[in-house]
Amino acid sequence: MPSPTVAVLAGGYGAARFLQGLVRVVEPSNITAVVNCGDDVILHGLHVSPDLDTVTYCLTGELNPETGWGLKGETWQALETLSRLGAETWFSLGDRDLGTHVYRTRRLREGAPLSQVTAEVSAGWGVGIRILPATDDRIETRLTLLGDPLTEIGFQEYFVKRRHSVAVGSVRFAGAALTSPAPGVMKALEISRILVIAPSNPILSIWPILAIPGIRAAVNLRRNSVVAISPIVDGAALRGPAARLLEELGHEPSVAGVARLYSPLASVLVIDEADRRRAQEVEAEGMRCVVTPTVMHTPSLAAELAEVVIGALS
Amino acid sequence: MPSPTVAVLAGGYGAARFLQGLVRVVEPSNITAVVNCGDDVILHGLHVSPDLDTVTYCLTGELNPETGWGLKGETWQALETLSRLGAETWFSLGDRDLGTHVYRTRRLREGAPLSQVTAEVSAGWGVGIRILPATDDRIETRLTLLGDPLTEIGFQEYFVKRRHSVAVGSVRFAGAALTSPAPGVMKALEISRILVIAPSNPILSIWPILAIPGIRAAVNLRRNSVVAISPIVDGAALRGPAARLLEELGHEPSVAGVARLYSPLASVLVIDEADRRRAQEVEAEGMRCVVTPTVMHTPSLAAELAEVVIGALS
Repeated sequence: MPSPTVAVLAGGYGAARFLQGLVRVVEPSNITAVVNCGDDVILHGLHVSPDLDTVTYCLTGELNPETGWGLKGETWQALETLSRLGAETWFSLGDRDLGTHVYRTRRLREGAPLSQVTAEVSAGWGVGIRILPATDDRIETRLTLLGDPLTEIGFQEYFVKRRHSVAVGSVRFAGAALTSPAPGVMKALEISRILVIAPSNPILSIWPILAIPGIRAAVNLRRNSVVAISPIVDGAALRGPAARLLEELGHEPSVAGVARLYSPLASVLVIDEADRRRAQEVEAEGMRCVVTPTVMHTPSLAAELAEVVIGALS
Repeated sequence: MPSPTVAVLAGGYGAARFLQGLVRVVEPSNITAVVNCGDDVILHGLHVSPDLDTVTYCLTGELNPETGWGLKGETWQALETLSRLGAETWFSLGDRDLGTHVYRTRRLREGAPLSQVTAEVSAGWGVGIRILPATDDRIETRLTLLGDPLTEIGFQEYFVKRRHSVAVGSVRFAGAALTSPAPGVMKALEISRILVIAPSNPILSIWPILAIPGIRAAVNLRRNSVVAISPIVDGAALRGPAARLLEELGHEPSVAGVARLYSPLASVLVIDEADRRRAQEVEAEGMRCVVTPTVMHTPSLAAELAEVVIGALS
């Protein structure tokens, strides 16, 4: 097993699947995931970190494969009680999952930073890689809907309550300017041999990480060691609203559009076989283009992708 | 259905069973339960009110009849996650139940007083009587163990973690002097036609209610309208450590001992048939003694007891 150190900028499901492959080809203790927390939300007074939890649950083999979020064997009894008491329940919190949120909330209230709590949670769930929230501070991804620039909604209201079926006018990362990278993030970005931008939604998962002062510049400085994986395959996202959102915000929902976004940050873009004919457009944006199957139907396929990604810079 | 107004000083299970009978013989909207909250405890950052919940769950028919606490059809998934994360899990919090605690905690953090939250919770669970916490302030039942007067433990640590199998040296209600009765409590004690001291643990359930400044005096003034039900039957408690604790603290674990405790507060003591031979001792303490079956195996038996209790002063 080759064991370069690898840092991965990560959102939720796509990143989690990639990491599940990466741990098969790189020593897990050499891997740092720097995870988006712009989607974090307070629900029922509990601090929920969807991307951190998706990565954690996926790596521990407990992610519900049917939904792509939450845990296997989940029950919904607490939520039923909350519903009975008149609480809003459009965000599905399972009972197993709730234990994580209750734990996290208690520790945060005790004064522990999110990075410390995340280390405890991932240790408890038996995860072998290091999972870092991008920041210990509060950053909130907020959106306006097309045609209604004065009404801003939170990420979860867009993504879950409205099932991302509304056109977005703008996205911002509230509080970003006042945040700092969580302990360990800058060092991981500076010294890891390879940096990977996971196949996550560029705008909703990767941008909020890069919005934290210092991170974009650090990635930029390492451009020659950065590989991005396109979350867009054949003009569409495998899951979620990435393609639609790129288009709504004036970007081309294609590997070429992704290349335009990532070219300042990464020297290599990995695209799917389905986009082979567009490799030249990617290279025209100043990135080396690697073509390989990127759809991670199984952890083995994810491992093959990880091998190619690591190999691209080795 | 006769419908006097009735206020009941209530602990957990015994009181809850009595109230389940009372609602069959008195118009529920005429009943106010003034419930002990000295057992309230913060667990995993959540505010747990065991006696309030036992009363609520019992009246809604959802109390687990096998345990006498918690809900029917309960699961324990969140607790399993908490245990995985290294949290202490000696206090069993079920998933259904957890919904109540999450809701209560959020509302308290939003600034709602416990009485308001309790009204919301009991409405959500469909309870027809008015349930009031004795106080909106923090009062904590704390105990020292025999021979170790310097180490104080909380009620739940005594009752649940140590399964009340240790000898108690002393009991106090920390913070009591700084508490006030919750809104509605004094009025209920002043204007209800009948006041009932439920068959709860006198020291651990009733005393903490009476320790709230103003309540003992209010009950005292109404002595002629107060009926107490002995929680001790034939020298033993039906459930829990009442008999043992009375003895450890220097009281006689018998209906006569209960009469000695309650004589300043209540004009009538209802005792079980099993204690008929001791009725004279009760009367010698200055109370009228009513003898009737007090063991509430079923809600119908509880209703018969309630009828006798109400009848004792009608």
